[in-house]
Amino acid sequence: MHRDQQGGREIMTDLYELTMAASYFEQEKFAPATFSLFVREYPPNRSYLVCAGLDPLLNYLESFRFRPDDLEFLQKTSLFPDKFLTYLEKLRFTGDVRAIPEGRIAFCDEPLLEITAPVMQAQLVETFVINAINLSTLISTKASRCLYAAGDRRLVDFSLRRTHGMDAGLMVARASYIGGFIGTSNVQAGKFYGLPIYGTMAHSYVETFDQEIDSFRAFAKSFPDNTVLLIDTYDTLAGARKAVTVAQEMRKEGKTLRAVRLDSGDMVQLSKQVREIFDQSGFPEVRIFASGGFDEFKIQKILAAGAQIDAFGVGTRLGVSADAPYLNMAYKMVEYNGRPVLKLSSGKVSLAGPKQVFRQRDDQGLFKRDLIGLGDESVTDAEPLLMPVMKEGKRLLGSEPLAEIQLRFRKEFVQLPEIYKDLQGNPNYPVDTTSRLRALQDLVSKEIRQKELTEFE
Amino acid sequence: MHRDQQGGREIMTDLYELTMAASYFEQEKFAPATFSLFVREYPPNRSYLVCAGLDPLLNYLESFRFRPDDLEFLQKTSLFPDKFLTYLEKLRFTGDVRAIPEGRIAFCDEPLLEITAPVMQAQLVETFVINAINLSTLISTKASRCLYAAGDRRLVDFSLRRTHGMDAGLMVARASYIGGFIGTSNVQAGKFYGLPIYGTMAHSYVETFDQEIDSFRAFAKSFPDNTVLLIDTYDTLAGARKAVTVAQEMRKEGKTLRAVRLDSGDMVQLSKQVREIFDQSGFPEVRIFASGGFDEFKIQKILAAGAQIDAFGVGTRLGVSADAPYLNMAYKMVEYNGRPVLKLSSGKVSLAGPKQVFRQRDDQGLFKRDLIGLGDESVTDAEPLLMPVMKEGKRLLGSEPLAEIQLRFRKEFVQLPEIYKDLQGNPNYPVDTTSRLRALQDLVSKEIRQKELTEFE
Repeated sequence: MHRDQQGGREIMTDLYELTMAASYFEQEKFAPATFSLFVREYPPNRSYLVCAGLDPLLNYLESFRFRPDDLEFLQKTSLFPDKFLTYLEKLRFTGDVRAIPEGRIAFCDEPLLEITAPVMQAQLVETFVINAINLSTLISTKASRCLYAAGDRRLVDFSLRRTHGMDAGLMVARASYIGGFIGTSNVQAGKFYGLPIYGTMAHSYVETFDQEIDSFRAFAKSFPDNTVLLIDTYDTLAGARKAVTVAQEMRKEGKTLRAVRLDSGDMVQLSKQVREIFDQSGFPEVRIFASGGFDEFKIQKILAAGAQIDAFGVGTRLGVSADAPYLNMAYKMVEYNGRPVLKLSSGKVSLAGPKQVFRQRDDQGLFKRDLIGLGDESVTDAEPLLMPVMKEGKRLLGSEPLAEIQLRFRKEFVQLPEIYKDLQGNPNYPVDTTSRLRALQDLVSKEIRQKELTEFE
Repeated sequence: MHRDQQGGREIMTDLYELTMAASYFEQEKFAPATFSLFVREYPPNRSYLVCAGLDPLLNYLESFRFRPDDLEFLQKTSLFPDKFLTYLEKLRFTGDVRAIPEGRIAFCDEPLLEITAPVMQAQLVETFVINAINLSTLISTKASRCLYAAGDRRLVDFSLRRTHGMDAGLMVARASYIGGFIGTSNVQAGKFYGLPIYGTMAHSYVETFDQEIDSFRAFAKSFPDNTVLLIDTYDTLAGARKAVTVAQEMRKEGKTLRAVRLDSGDMVQLSKQVREIFDQSGFPEVRIFASGGFDEFKIQKILAAGAQIDAFGVGTRLGVSADAPYLNMAYKMVEYNGRPVLKLSSGKVSLAGPKQVFRQRDDQGLFKRDLIGLGDESVTDAEPLLMPVMKEGKRLLGSEPLAEIQLRFRKEFVQLPEIYKDLQGNPNYPVDTTSRLRALQDLVSKEIRQKELTEFE
C-alpha cells in the first residue's frame, strides 16, 4: 500500500471511538476524563515490563488532527451528522499526560500512563495509545530477557522480514535498542532513529559465484574494513577453512577479517570447531557471529553448553515476541467530570481514580516493593514513577536520545532483584495498593452496586 | 512517528541487501536470478495456508525507487561508493513475478511466488516480500480457522489496538476479510480497502453517565438505526433487563434495538440467560454479539457448549495470530544466470530451479494431492497454481476486489477435505515432487558437494 494514500492516523482507530464521540457531541458531554493504561496480567514467562513507546505516542498526540480526506470518508459512511464532522475538523488534542519514562521497569496493574482530557479526546486516542505502547513495551521486555541470557555478548535486531508489517519493524528496532541491543539490520531504523545498522551477506550472494571462496574474496574486496563472511551455505567447517584462506590473503593486504557468521546446524559443536580452526590458524581475533532462530531461551541454552559465540543476530522470535505476542493491556476510564468511575465486568474490574505509582528500595538500592496510590498521595521513602510529560497538548520535553533511554534501562535492570529476571518468570514482585486507594474502590463499588443492580437483579 | 518523515519504503530493508547489492555492482553481476518464496514448516495447529498479501506487494514492486533523502542517508553511512548510489537513484524493479492468487489454499514447501529479475533487484526486495506475504498469509489462515469454528455466525475483526503497529492493523483487516470475516472495527481499513466497518460503544461511554440505562437511551437516540448496547459494564443480566426497557421505548418510536454485546464472564451461561430475557420479553429479533478474548478455539468450545451467540468480535488473538505469530517463510535463490542453485545448510536445504505447483482433485472435486515440479513441466489432470502477475515490472492485471478474493477462498475452502481443517492440525496433506525436480536436486547437490567440499573437508 502507498503511505501517502493512507490519510491521517486519526482514523487509524476503532469505529466505536467515533460513534461514542458523536454521541458525546450530541449529549454535549465535554467534561474532562482521566484514562489509565495498564497491563492486566503477565504474559507467560514474564515478571516485569520495560516501558517503551512513549515518545512516538507523544508525537501522535501533539499532531492530532482529522484530515479533509478522512472527514470526507466519514461523511460518506452516513453514520455521522455533519455538525459533528465540522466539529472534528477543528479538534486537537489539548490534554495532559503523565507517564512512567521509557526504559524504566514497571509491573502489572501499575498505570504506565494516564491521560486527562475532554472525554471525547481521551476516548478518540484510545486505539492508538494501546497500539503504540503495547508492542514497544512487549519488545523492550523481550529484548531485556535476551540481554540477560547473553551476558556481555552483543545483540543485534535481525527481525524486519518477519515483523508484523514495516511499521512494526521500526518499532521493534527502537524498542529492542531500549532493551539493550546494540543495533539493528533495519536500514530505515538507522535513518529514522539514528540506530547503528549491521549486515553483510546472505546465502544467495554466495550462490551467485561459481565457488564459495570466490564470494568471500569478492566481499572482502567490496568491504575490506568490515568483512563478515557467512560460512554455512554448503558446509560450515569447509566454509571456515575457506574463510581462513581469505583471512590470510587479507592479512597480506594489511586488512583484517572481522568475523564469520553461522546460521544453521548444531551451534554448540560448530562454534567450538570454528573457534578452533581460527585459533589454530593464527586468527584469534576473528569473531563468531550467530543467527538463526535465536531467542533468550536458545541463547541461554547454547551458552550454558559452552558455545563459542561473540554476538547474536536475534530475529523472528524477538520481532514478534514469539512466546508472548501481546500484552493484555487496557486503557480504562478512571474519572469522569471529577467523579471516580470503574467497571465491575467479571474478571476485568478496573481501579477508580487518577493514580501514582511509588517504588520502595532496600538498603542496597534493589527494588523492594511498589505501591499504587491515588494521584494526590505521597509515600515516604518511595519514588513516584509517573511524571508529567504533556500539558494542554504540548510536550514538556523534547525527544530523549535513545542511548539515554537505554542507559536508564540498564541502571534500573541492575536494581531489579535477580529472581525476577528468571526466563521462566517469577511473577510475584509485590505491588500493593494504598489504603486510600482501597477505600475509594470500596466506596465506588458499593455506590455502583446500589445504583445499578438493586432495581434490575 | 510521522509517516512523511519515514522516507521511501525501499530502505525498509535489511542492511545486507544493500551491501550485497553494492558488491554485485562492483562485480558487475547483473545477470537474472529467480527467487522462490515458500513456507518451510507448518506452525502449531496448522495444516494449510490461505494465500494473501500479493496485491500490496505488487504495488510496492511497481513503485520501487530510492528517494533522494534515502540516498543521502546511505551516503552518510560511508559504507557505499558514490557510483553505486548514483546507480541506485535510477534503479527500478523490471522483473517478472509468478504467484498463487490471493485467497487460494497452499501448503508447505510450495512456492507461493517466484520473482525473476536482475539479481540485485530480486535481492533488494527480499525483506519487503517476506514481510508482506508472511503476515497476510498468517492472518488469512487464522481467520479461516475462526470461520470454520463459527459455522454460519458472523465474524468481525476487532484487533487494531493490539496489532503490531498500525500498518499491521490494516494488513490484518484486509487478510481477515479474505479469510471469511465480514468486516472490521478499523476505520482506516474501511477507507483504504472499502471494507465494511463495525462498532458501537465501550464501557467508558457507559461510565460517563450517572446511570447505565441513561447511556443506553442516549446511544439509541444518537444511532436509532444501528443500536447495539454493551451490557456487561456492571452486571450482564441487569444490563440485559435495562436493554429490554430501552428496546420497549425504541419500539414505541418505531425503532428496533439491533443487538447487545457481551464482553466478559461465562459466555455460555450468560448468552443463554440473555437470549431468554429477550425472547421472554418479546424481542426475539435482538441479536447477541460477543467479544473478549475470542479465537477459533474459544469459539468452537463455547458453541459446542450451547452458547447463544449470533456474531463474534475477534480481536487480539486473531490480530497477532497468537498461537502461531509467524510463519517460517523463506525467499531463496533457485537459479542464477541460467544455473540452478541451492543451499545445503543443515535443516534448511532449498530446492533448485524455477518451479510450478500442480493440484490434483478427486471425483468430487476435493483436493487429493499437490505436486511441485519444474517451471516448464506440465502434469496431466492437474491444475497449475502459479500464475504470471507481473511482467518486466508492470502488473498484468489491476487490483482484484476483496469480495472476489474472499469468494475464491470460500470456493477453495469447500474443496479442502475436512480432516485438514481440524483446529489441532493435521499436517499431512500430500505434497510430492516430480521426478524431474528430484533428478535436478540430486544433480545439483552432487555437483556442489564435489566442488565445495572435497578440497576443504
